[in-house]
Amino acid sequence: MPSYYVERLKINFKTLEEFKQFRDYGLAELSMLEDLEANLIENNSESPFYGIYLYGRLAARMCLYHIDAKYDRYFSPPQEYLELWKLEVLAPYQKQGLGSALVSYAKQFGLPIKTNARNRSAQFWEKMGFQPVRYSPERDRGESPYVWLPENVSLLDEENKEK
Amino acid sequence: MPSYYVERLKINFKTLEEFKQFRDYGLAELSMLEDLEANLIENNSESPFYGIYLYGRLAARMCLYHIDAKYDRYFSPPQEYLELWKLEVLAPYQKQGLGSALVSYAKQFGLPIKTNARNRSAQFWEKMGFQPVRYSPERDRGESPYVWLPENVSLLDEENKEK
Repeated sequence: MPSYYVERLKINFKTLEEFKQFRDYGLAELSMLEDLEANLIENNSESPFYGIYLYGRLAARMCLYHIDAKYDRYFSPPQEYLELWKLEVLAPYQKQGLGSALVSYAKQFGLPIKTNARNRSAQFWEKMGFQPVRYSPERDRGESPYVWLPENVSLLDEENKEK
Repeated sequence: MPSYYVERLKINFKTLEEFKQFRDYGLAELSMLEDLEANLIENNSESPFYGIYLYGRLAARMCLYHIDAKYDRYFSPPQEYLELWKLEVLAPYQKQGLGSALVSYAKQFGLPIKTNARNRSAQFWEKMGFQPVRYSPERDRGESPYVWLPENVSLLDEENKEK
């Protein structure tokens, strides 16, 4: 197995063609494609996507999105955090640590991270140091939010419990 | 194939045991289980889940959640709508119209419906009369929102375009 590294993906037609291999391909990707075609965004513009190439092929990816402190409903004190979406490793490249490498990369920004543990992935997130929040239907709307906390950050739920 | 009908699911230990067969089993279900165990909710309480039983087994389900008009960011005029989550048909019962039956049931409430077209399900939602919205990263956060509009309801995006 070759060595690999995480890189920030450029948004261009090649990247979007690679995205078509992923199961979670939806409006976010289609919207990027339309914007490229309409020259609304530049070819090779920076994107919120990060990925790992193996043998010249995009083998894994995730999206990291900055959420402003004023929208924070998870952490205490309220603060900017990263929402991690669309973590996915293509089938032939699974079980080689690519998913863990992407999540470790996300942690190095030092911000809290929130993700949605879909399809029984809770065990993976727990292994990565994430924890479940107390589910709130109004806030979480069917998601299974798992969060990672850097030092000096608490969960809002825990704070409320102490009061 | 037997005739079937959609019913509102009671929240009790039997229902939650049936939920374990579904792929999308997460914090929402665990939270219900904890609340039952702690006697925080009553056995057989009404739930936001609807399902179809075949041969005495829960074969398909969905969750319908009322969103208050003040949180509406999709429709014009702003109004109460239904968020449809966790639509899932167990593998042995697929391709028999159970998913369509659940969605048709949801429409009869006469409210707009919003869902997240996950994992390349866009074709199914379009067949059911749903349409994609214009993707907004801040609002849609990696989702692929598809909506169904009753008469006299428009998409907020379309309204903005006309102005």
